[in-house]
Amino acid sequence: MIDKILNYLEENKDQHVKELCEYLSIPSISSIPAHDNDIMEAARFTHKAFEAIGLTSEIIETDGHPLVYAQSEQLPDRKTLLFYGHYDVQPVDPIELWESPPFEPRIENEIIYARGGSDDKGQLYTHIKALEAYVKLGVDVPVNVKFIIEGEEEAGGEEIYKFTESNPEKLACDAVIVSDTSLYNEETPAICYSLKGLAYMQIDVKGPGMDLHSGSFGGTVQNPGNVICEIISRLKDGSGRVQIPGFYDSVLELDDAEKASFESLNYSDEVLCKDTGASGPFGEEGFTTLERMWGRPTLDVNGLWSGYSGEGAKTIVPATAGAKVSMRLVPNQNPEQIAELFSKFVEKITPDGVEVKVSYLHGAQAVMVPRDSEMMQAGMKAMELGFGSKPVFIREGGSIPIVGTFQDCLKAPVLLLGYGLPNDNIHSPNEKFHLRNYFDGIKTTAYLLKLAGE
Amino acid sequence: MIDKILNYLEENKDQHVKELCEYLSIPSISSIPAHDNDIMEAARFTHKAFEAIGLTSEIIETDGHPLVYAQSEQLPDRKTLLFYGHYDVQPVDPIELWESPPFEPRIENEIIYARGGSDDKGQLYTHIKALEAYVKLGVDVPVNVKFIIEGEEEAGGEEIYKFTESNPEKLACDAVIVSDTSLYNEETPAICYSLKGLAYMQIDVKGPGMDLHSGSFGGTVQNPGNVICEIISRLKDGSGRVQIPGFYDSVLELDDAEKASFESLNYSDEVLCKDTGASGPFGEEGFTTLERMWGRPTLDVNGLWSGYSGEGAKTIVPATAGAKVSMRLVPNQNPEQIAELFSKFVEKITPDGVEVKVSYLHGAQAVMVPRDSEMMQAGMKAMELGFGSKPVFIREGGSIPIVGTFQDCLKAPVLLLGYGLPNDNIHSPNEKFHLRNYFDGIKTTAYLLKLAGE
Repeated sequence: MIDKILNYLEENKDQHVKELCEYLSIPSISSIPAHDNDIMEAARFTHKAFEAIGLTSEIIETDGHPLVYAQSEQLPDRKTLLFYGHYDVQPVDPIELWESPPFEPRIENEIIYARGGSDDKGQLYTHIKALEAYVKLGVDVPVNVKFIIEGEEEAGGEEIYKFTESNPEKLACDAVIVSDTSLYNEETPAICYSLKGLAYMQIDVKGPGMDLHSGSFGGTVQNPGNVICEIISRLKDGSGRVQIPGFYDSVLELDDAEKASFESLNYSDEVLCKDTGASGPFGEEGFTTLERMWGRPTLDVNGLWSGYSGEGAKTIVPATAGAKVSMRLVPNQNPEQIAELFSKFVEKITPDGVEVKVSYLHGAQAVMVPRDSEMMQAGMKAMELGFGSKPVFIREGGSIPIVGTFQDCLKAPVLLLGYGLPNDNIHSPNEKFHLRNYFDGIKTTAYLLKLAGE
Repeated sequence: MIDKILNYLEENKDQHVKELCEYLSIPSISSIPAHDNDIMEAARFTHKAFEAIGLTSEIIETDGHPLVYAQSEQLPDRKTLLFYGHYDVQPVDPIELWESPPFEPRIENEIIYARGGSDDKGQLYTHIKALEAYVKLGVDVPVNVKFIIEGEEEAGGEEIYKFTESNPEKLACDAVIVSDTSLYNEETPAICYSLKGLAYMQIDVKGPGMDLHSGSFGGTVQNPGNVICEIISRLKDGSGRVQIPGFYDSVLELDDAEKASFESLNYSDEVLCKDTGASGPFGEEGFTTLERMWGRPTLDVNGLWSGYSGEGAKTIVPATAGAKVSMRLVPNQNPEQIAELFSKFVEKITPDGVEVKVSYLHGAQAVMVPRDSEMMQAGMKAMELGFGSKPVFIREGGSIPIVGTFQDCLKAPVLLLGYGLPNDNIHSPNEKFHLRNYFDGIKTTAYLLKLAGE
């Protein structure tokens, strides 16, 4: 039976590429209102793709961009898989760095170059094409499927959260499949079982009533530019360990198996330097780079501002200064609690003579998925068959906030089946998606539909 | 004889105000090329004002804006006074905060509101009107006078420096009079005998090759935003004392007479808070606010930048960070030497994993004028007679770099006879010049011309 499916996929490769290119031609940039019509067009394209394979689909209007929902006939006594993805894409700036127009997909050396190729149209379309094979061949799909596709992931929209919280029955399922991440590297497929959480803070320091002449008043009143530096410098010690009291209290420590598994991936300093352009690793003492990246909470300045930053010299004591600081959290750390510890500490170490305001801009709970569940085993097997080699377990330093919401509202495990590559230039010029990953992704989903139903 | 002069000045008040208003109507903004014609017009106005009182005057073309030079007949066996000023003005932004158009002088409650009123057209014009009284009345001026007026003081132009260095004979004199500063306060005229020097630095920190996703790489490589804060925080201790080794080595300490004199000015915390909008004083321990302001070297952040500073959250480890840091220096500190100590210290404390570049953007030597010279005594006396109360000796936290050049190239003492008020809004909207200060300034110069010749 699976051979028939694989044959069908082989025979329809060209058609599948052609359709994906059509999808990628729609400039559905969610954060730019001028593209609202394109957003609608991408939603309709998605909706029609579902109808074309016999699913019941609807475009759900919201206060933001529409959601597209679809489902197969829901048979009793079958497991239900919910697939999540997003049809919107990032803006294309800086446009001058693109080697071909972002919405005119170009194929070169078996790679499609287009905005949305890997993030996320290419990945989500694999599921539709896998299902198509079953439907067109009349092969029974041994699981019920549902799809919820949103159009404002890249714009930080809230609609998917509101919808999930209000419609847990509609989205009820045994597992959620999220394909919006990457393989470990070109040779190594991977399943991610943990995402970091986030507490994103802003510190605003107010000193004098206006910018002062630094000759007249320098050295006589607190300078917010100096103060913000003093505050930031006390948040971590010289080795990068966070100094906020209580910060590490609820950290879920890495177990020996995880450490050994990370170790076996041989992530070298050379690779880190190549990936980042940094001159070497730096971070909390006693941990490897992968442990810091995936398993340890971290704290970083994301932005810093005060006074004059143009050419030449402007001689002022600036009136204000500010910083954006993100903390990446690990399972069991509570973002609200961490935000509070941060705020209290910053207030405590702020010297007299300035006002400080600490704002919690947003947060996300870290995610941990059991590695020994049936669904995880099915995912591992499907990926091994689809990509032709055994996937590794990885964790992610980034956050995918909707994953936490799915876990909380649907009480279902989430399977992060990422089909992209780490260097796919998502959010950057010349985004790409390798055809091999597209085809092997389709195969992986085809296997998963079978294995999950067994 | 002086009574005749004072009578003339009293009788010609209206005319003198009218002329100043004409001068102030010319929008001679030196830093905006669109105003180049206005600069020329202001130079010509200045030139004609000199000719009208019988001086030999010339407009000296330069690579920048023109200088205006003028001199009386230079008689032997007479002292020579060189008056310095500038006919250019600051830009007017933010224009919406002006209560009347900046180049349509408005008089209200005996105050002229106009750009350039106090800085510096109003002040330099006092000298011309004082001399006019002598000339029109046929009273012998007992000193030789020279004027050098520049047109790019507000644009940081170099021409006045080049000209002074190349023409020390032409500008040769027994004293330079600079009227581009302020009284101590409305009731207290003042002569400034010391200006701070300056070493203005920029620190650039380079980390990863590009902005990195703070989820993917946060906590694994050095973050330039954190590093710049660490560096800045180590430049001063908690009380504001500079930590750069050798920084205080050559400081000319305040003597007891100066400390007592500062003390007698009763500069209170309340006044500091009112002047700055700060909540209280802050600075090097063991010194009063005026001592910090006028007599102690200081270090301040003037600007700070890294990563994202817009609305909301952008989750990046920034590739770069930077800061502008100025050090205000006191007599005997050498700006180049201090810049070198700064650079060495910053390089030493910069952690591994980033590149740091320290640039010395510009500097100025502090200035100290002997308080017991004949010319200083003449200036004190003239000011007491002109303003009707005894002036105090003050120092300035700001730098006037041309003063050091005059001292070095002309080997002549500089007398800082400031006729403005500290709250004249120079460089800000609604710049003003009090008519009382204009008239008393003219009288002061009239007395000085007499006293300096005795």
